Amino acid sequence: MAAHRISDAVIRRLPGYYRYLRELEKIGITRISSQELGARMGLTASQIRQDINCFGTLGQQGYGYNVTELRSHIAGILGLGHKYKMVIAGAGNIGQAVAWYPGFSQRGFDPLAMFDVKPDLIGRVIRGVPVHNITELRPFLQEHPAEIGVVATPARVAQQVAQQMIEGGVRAIWNFAPLDLKVPPNVVANNVHLTDSLLVLTYRLHQMEQNEEAADANNPER
Amino acid sequence: MAAHRISDAVIRRLPGYYRYLRELEKIGITRISSQELGARMGLTASQIRQDINCFGTLGQQGYGYNVTELRSHIAGILGLGHKYKMVIAGAGNIGQAVAWYPGFSQRGFDPLAMFDVKPDLIGRVIRGVPVHNITELRPFLQEHPAEIGVVATPARVAQQVAQQMIEGGVRAIWNFAPLDLKVPPNVVANNVHLTDSLLVLTYRLHQMEQNEEAADANNPER
Repeated sequence: MAAHRISDAVIRRLPGYYRYLRELEKIGITRISSQELGARMGLTASQIRQDINCFGTLGQQGYGYNVTELRSHIAGILGLGHKYKMVIAGAGNIGQAVAWYPGFSQRGFDPLAMFDVKPDLIGRVIRGVPVHNITELRPFLQEHPAEIGVVATPARVAQQVAQQMIEGGVRAIWNFAPLDLKVPPNVVANNVHLTDSLLVLTYRLHQMEQNEEAADANNPER
Repeated sequence: MAAHRISDAVIRRLPGYYRYLRELEKIGITRISSQELGARMGLTASQIRQDINCFGTLGQQGYGYNVTELRSHIAGILGLGHKYKMVIAGAGNIGQAVAWYPGFSQRGFDPLAMFDVKPDLIGRVIRGVPVHNITELRPFLQEHPAEIGVVATPARVAQQVAQQMIEGGVRAIWNFAPLDLKVPPNVVANNVHLTDSLLVLTYRLHQMEQNEEAADANNPER
């Protein structure tokens, strides 16, 4: 398995490859060239070949890649194909969105329970997922081990909640609270900063508007 | 303004800079060296200096950067400091999470309205944001221009909804539906793939577990 040599940039592209290959499979395409795959993913054919070389020798010069073979190989690298149990701290909009995100369950992600502090949520079962008191998180994990912990709490309690998850045996933290969680070396964390994504959008909007203004100034007859 | 020469990789780091510099300001730190900033951001001092050189000449050799000056300069590049009006299609969990995400309103993002198809949502005003029928999206935009459109609908209608937003004058699409929206060149789009972020997490979890198994196999006494 050569997967441990894959660079961070390639890792971030892997889910995109997986997504596109699944789409190709759905519409019945069985082989694809690096040129075609590159055009779909906004990469050059040479980048595609480099990326795919990182994770093994698939495809033959001039014959393209077998879509199903490549998709299933990437699924293996991504650790798909086995079940992941999740606990979700914070049963607000983000916690609920994660619990029911379309496609999570079919990819093997199983939300066991949500945890919150709000009395009107605790004790309810929302679309099959029970909401427990956040004080139950630690004891719950003892009886129901989970690999993935989703932190969708306010920022001020996020680190403490992550700590309880880690003490309860969680190995991977998916964090939506607006701060970078600190985790020990035997735990992985992915901090999703929704605001960052919005700021990249406004940056591009702002640049586009400035370029348009500059174009107008240079071309007053426009 | 040198901003149009900034690379995509630097652009993606800009919100992180902005975030860390705000945190530093909050705790009263007025100057920071590239070494210290790098340590906080997981970058080398030389990468920090290169990044910051991209967006102008700030800081003097040996004196570090003025935190407030750098933060406000980056805010300017990101297009912060002026108001953005947003419309949100899809008043489900993700739409609602975006409408009330902590920190959006204080950064100048103003959600005008949400749009949905569900009769039990239409006509309600949830935490100050009205929910209208999705059929009202186009006429609403004519009376209430908005720069940013948030797509938080099911995938099958996302492209059509984005099209209506663009026809209504929206210039930036923030898309949460699990597909890449196509937009014309005078519109910017940022596709948030929540599943991709989860798959990067499971990839890292899977790698860590494999490395542990390999270590155990090489060291049976452990």
